Amino acid sequence: MTDTQLMDKLVSLAKRRGFVFQSSEIYGGLGSVWDYGPLGVELKKNLKERWWRSMVHERGDIEGLDAAILMHARVWEASGHVEGFTDPLVDCRTCKARFRADQLDQFQCPQKPSKHPGEANQCDLTEPRMFNLMFKTFMGPVEEDAAVVYLRPETAQGIYVNYLNVMQAARQKIPFGIAQVGKAFRNEITPGNFIFRTREFEQMEMQFFVRPDEDERWFDEWKEARMQWHLGLGIRAEKLRFHEHAPDELAHYAKKAFDIEYEFPFGWHEFEGIHNRTDFDLSRHQEFSGKKLEYMDPATRERFVPYIIETSLGADRLALVVLVDAYREEEVEGELRVVLGLAPALAPIKAGIYPLVKKDGMPEVARRINDDLRRRFPVFCDDGGSIGRRYRRQDEAGTPFGITVDGQTLEDQTVTVRDRDTLVQERVHADQLVTYLEERLAP
Amino acid sequence: MTDTQLMDKLVSLAKRRGFVFQSSEIYGGLGSVWDYGPLGVELKKNLKERWWRSMVHERGDIEGLDAAILMHARVWEASGHVEGFTDPLVDCRTCKARFRADQLDQFQCPQKPSKHPGEANQCDLTEPRMFNLMFKTFMGPVEEDAAVVYLRPETAQGIYVNYLNVMQAARQKIPFGIAQVGKAFRNEITPGNFIFRTREFEQMEMQFFVRPDEDERWFDEWKEARMQWHLGLGIRAEKLRFHEHAPDELAHYAKKAFDIEYEFPFGWHEFEGIHNRTDFDLSRHQEFSGKKLEYMDPATRERFVPYIIETSLGADRLALVVLVDAYREEEVEGELRVVLGLAPALAPIKAGIYPLVKKDGMPEVARRINDDLRRRFPVFCDDGGSIGRRYRRQDEAGTPFGITVDGQTLEDQTVTVRDRDTLVQERVHADQLVTYLEERLAP
Repeated sequence: MTDTQLMDKLVSLAKRRGFVFQSSEIYGGLGSVWDYGPLGVELKKNLKERWWRSMVHERGDIEGLDAAILMHARVWEASGHVEGFTDPLVDCRTCKARFRADQLDQFQCPQKPSKHPGEANQCDLTEPRMFNLMFKTFMGPVEEDAAVVYLRPETAQGIYVNYLNVMQAARQKIPFGIAQVGKAFRNEITPGNFIFRTREFEQMEMQFFVRPDEDERWFDEWKEARMQWHLGLGIRAEKLRFHEHAPDELAHYAKKAFDIEYEFPFGWHEFEGIHNRTDFDLSRHQEFSGKKLEYMDPATRERFVPYIIETSLGADRLALVVLVDAYREEEVEGELRVVLGLAPALAPIKAGIYPLVKKDGMPEVARRINDDLRRRFPVFCDDGGSIGRRYRRQDEAGTPFGITVDGQTLEDQTVTVRDRDTLVQERVHADQLVTYLEERLAP
Repeated sequence: MTDTQLMDKLVSLAKRRGFVFQSSEIYGGLGSVWDYGPLGVELKKNLKERWWRSMVHERGDIEGLDAAILMHARVWEASGHVEGFTDPLVDCRTCKARFRADQLDQFQCPQKPSKHPGEANQCDLTEPRMFNLMFKTFMGPVEEDAAVVYLRPETAQGIYVNYLNVMQAARQKIPFGIAQVGKAFRNEITPGNFIFRTREFEQMEMQFFVRPDEDERWFDEWKEARMQWHLGLGIRAEKLRFHEHAPDELAHYAKKAFDIEYEFPFGWHEFEGIHNRTDFDLSRHQEFSGKKLEYMDPATRERFVPYIIETSLGADRLALVVLVDAYREEEVEGELRVVLGLAPALAPIKAGIYPLVKKDGMPEVARRINDDLRRRFPVFCDDGGSIGRRYRRQDEAGTPFGITVDGQTLEDQTVTVRDRDTLVQERVHADQLVTYLEERLAP
């Protein structure tokens, strides 16, 4: 199986089992925008919920926030996005196509697809022009400059402009952090690779406010903590690595930056970044808003603008990491089966429930078990087709357990519980199912 | 206390305790856009989670979905929004202000604020012009008509265009539903009343697909179920009522519509709608996309375009209902106290933990209890100020229980647990706290 085949198969499985659909598919689709189906929404909820629990609920020093997507336009002047969040674009005077000037070798010439537009005699290219990646819209009833607002290109700024309000309301002292999950938008000219690079995406960000002289210690702590968190999801260690930004890769605000990369079928790519953003953002907001954003240390009476250590994780990218990492094909009893080996805590459906045959009262017993279990966890009752086909469908959905109601169930109230990965089947009393599953689903 | 005072007090409490902040406040704020602070995000999460559980997890006939905010522009032609989602606006030639032509009596004349712009001799108004309420932006690097996309003005259409994909992937048959929580955007000219009417808002919608001849039965069932759900949150029954849309109030797609209204300080207003949308939406998408969206009944082989019963709930409005309904002021031992009497299952923080004094090892015991409890539920440890002030702060935050570590704790490991509403204090052994709280926090 080549890497391209793997991605094609994953996209196909994602649609077939209801993880991800193309947006507006009946209208031919909208470029690089995707919708999460019944299983995708549960997978993403499980990931976000786990992140929120570890960041906000299980710690005393991080507060949650949910800032709006629309913000005052001055925010993006202060952050540098209005001026600097741009790509250089060139047009071809012959074929009228548009390309990123710094990535010509990643495009095909529309007239000779075997060639790149940058090659000699291929295209008659204009000089590069800078194009801003922010989506622009207008608030209020008049389309005039005064009312321009942008869809936020990152969630971080919503945290920075609220930092004083959060700190005061939550009675926090430095060091402390603010965590947020939310949508951001970038008008990318080269999106792609399924849900890896999309124009609408979701971020899980935590901004940690520290004393300037403690930035390096906190940077190292968060860098390690984030890698451990991903390993805790069950992602294979050999597919994860750090990549440190060289001086010429660093963003204008960053003193130090490490990416956490995963080896996708299309190469090693970043899905979380840990950044030392220094006091750049708060200093700029202080300058542009005219509001003091300094912190006064209650012990030393010292005043300073805090440094910020950011952990910025793409929720869609993480979902893709988890799906790619879980996908496998294997031969079982001479047949190929496709399995999503998701960690039980992340699986959208925790157990499939199957009456062996559609008679002798088995469907009714299965239905009762289903009604009982679904008060605790998402389960799915399926009586369609052979038991083998039903197992296969749930293997593809990543469902870790399969509960079968058979002839013996009617005599002694035991069912078989099949383990997705080992294929071992155990007989368990129906009354013990909640306990049995709870033990195996714990995070 | 007048109704205006109540809203002012609630907005002030919301900021002070970290429920809701004005967006981009340090830049003077962005009109009618709000950010949820540490407590607000938890309250809203609890509401959304409870809705999701009751709609998706506890039923077998409703699937979840998370469609993107950006959709193909044709979606909004089919839905009727491009043509018809408009307000009539008039300009004043003298003072250059702009008003809604159908609501002139709700505006003040900028030159004579005691008058409305529609009154005789007040303003020199233009003829009304229709203004579309959708936020428009451009996808891809060129601002040309072909690339226009809209921020969705409702989440429903994301469900309709995905209905076949969801039904097939999830192996559902009619009747079944699709549930979704997500943001929508309307460029309202008269937003207001805090988080009641905002330009960016979150909806919790469920669209239930039924046989055309079963629409009335399902409409009645959902209408009752939704009212019961709100009563289950602990909202006062006398503050809730149905309002049936008269024929001249019905939307173009609706055969029947009931609002669930709450008596806010600014009057009775809708926060959830139950609508019989007939086959309008699916028929239009069938027509505009050229894709068959019919359902074939597997039993009768009959083909039809399903009718849709919609339950559409505003998440921000529901949060406001819950806050308004919980707010009370009362005299306790000669002092005024402000209490948010939130149902324990909805409260952002479940328990405050207080060392009586900052010595004798009490802070350390409190910290240990805090670390132990926060693995189960959000708690907050506070050692700042008198115990009375600490209780008051958590009363305002809606925290149902207060756990105090005192001298006796050091001897026999019991703490006092104070009930926010009754003020009764019980002594409970520290080892029993999880069980004690779990019993009282159950939904």
